[in-house]
Amino acid sequence: MQEEDPFGIRPGEVAVTLPDRFDAQVYFIGRIRTPWMRRDDCPKNARESDAVCTIEVDPRWAMGLTGIESCTHLLVLYWMDRARRDLMLQAPRHYGQPRGTFALRSPVRPNPIAASVVRLTAVAGTQLTVVGLDCLDGTPLIDLKPYFASTDAVPDAVVGWHAERRG
Amino acid sequence: MQEEDPFGIRPGEVAVTLPDRFDAQVYFIGRIRTPWMRRDDCPKNARESDAVCTIEVDPRWAMGLTGIESCTHLLVLYWMDRARRDLMLQAPRHYGQPRGTFALRSPVRPNPIAASVVRLTAVAGTQLTVVGLDCLDGTPLIDLKPYFASTDAVPDAVVGWHAERRG
Repeated sequence: MQEEDPFGIRPGEVAVTLPDRFDAQVYFIGRIRTPWMRRDDCPKNARESDAVCTIEVDPRWAMGLTGIESCTHLLVLYWMDRARRDLMLQAPRHYGQPRGTFALRSPVRPNPIAASVVRLTAVAGTQLTVVGLDCLDGTPLIDLKPYFASTDAVPDAVVGWHAERRG
Repeated sequence: MQEEDPFGIRPGEVAVTLPDRFDAQVYFIGRIRTPWMRRDDCPKNARESDAVCTIEVDPRWAMGLTGIESCTHLLVLYWMDRARRDLMLQAPRHYGQPRGTFALRSPVRPNPIAASVVRLTAVAGTQLTVVGLDCLDGTPLIDLKPYFASTDAVPDAVVGWHAERRG
């Protein structure tokens, strides 16, 4: 069985020329351990999985975890390092018609940073046990943030194109 | 009136040695226009402000906005380019005791990427009008994502240290 080419382009998709230089740089501060070794194995989104995953923070940053155990949920930022960055219209297989990159949560985007809300179930040293991720095993971690319901939770938010889609 | 030194360190704060190299690079894909020209003018968090802000996306990425107008809310990632990156324990003035960087939403963190949920009120070409930001005018934009209530909204999430704090 062959994996889909992550750098391929589908009918209706549009790529742009990327800028000739970058503007800022990031550190990978740890790794995410998940049960998924290949893109095709990953759940399409985190709702589809109750899998327990592990976030391994590099020891250098250990002290930054002080107090994190008091959070029930975290916002996890990670780097989707296997995706092209130049598509502006994308046609994901499961959605049909092409849509703008900024109207999608696809890993394909100018800055391949994912943001996922997870439930924190345990902290042991620099290892965090969480539920709610859908990324590949080994994905680089770039940030952890406390999730504040007061500013981060908008239960009545609507993504119109998604609510109306026929496939 | 003098601004606080953004690179200063307070009693109880702890800095670490940063890695000697970066791991990945980002593009600034636009700028955020807000009413706040100095750090001391910014609201402490976005709940304190109903200010209307403008997100200006660079024309290169215009097609990526296709369909975004159907979203009531967006997740905005931006680069807090005026903060030091090496503090692991921080003592924000309004909180008192030092806390770990990953238990705080402070701009001071290894990767100074903020994530804010905004309400989208208008789209005109590559300009988005939004409510819910608290950053400095001119802040570099790095990503826009549709906000999905099904995965992003956790109304009962608790940040324990914040709920219990006495100041």
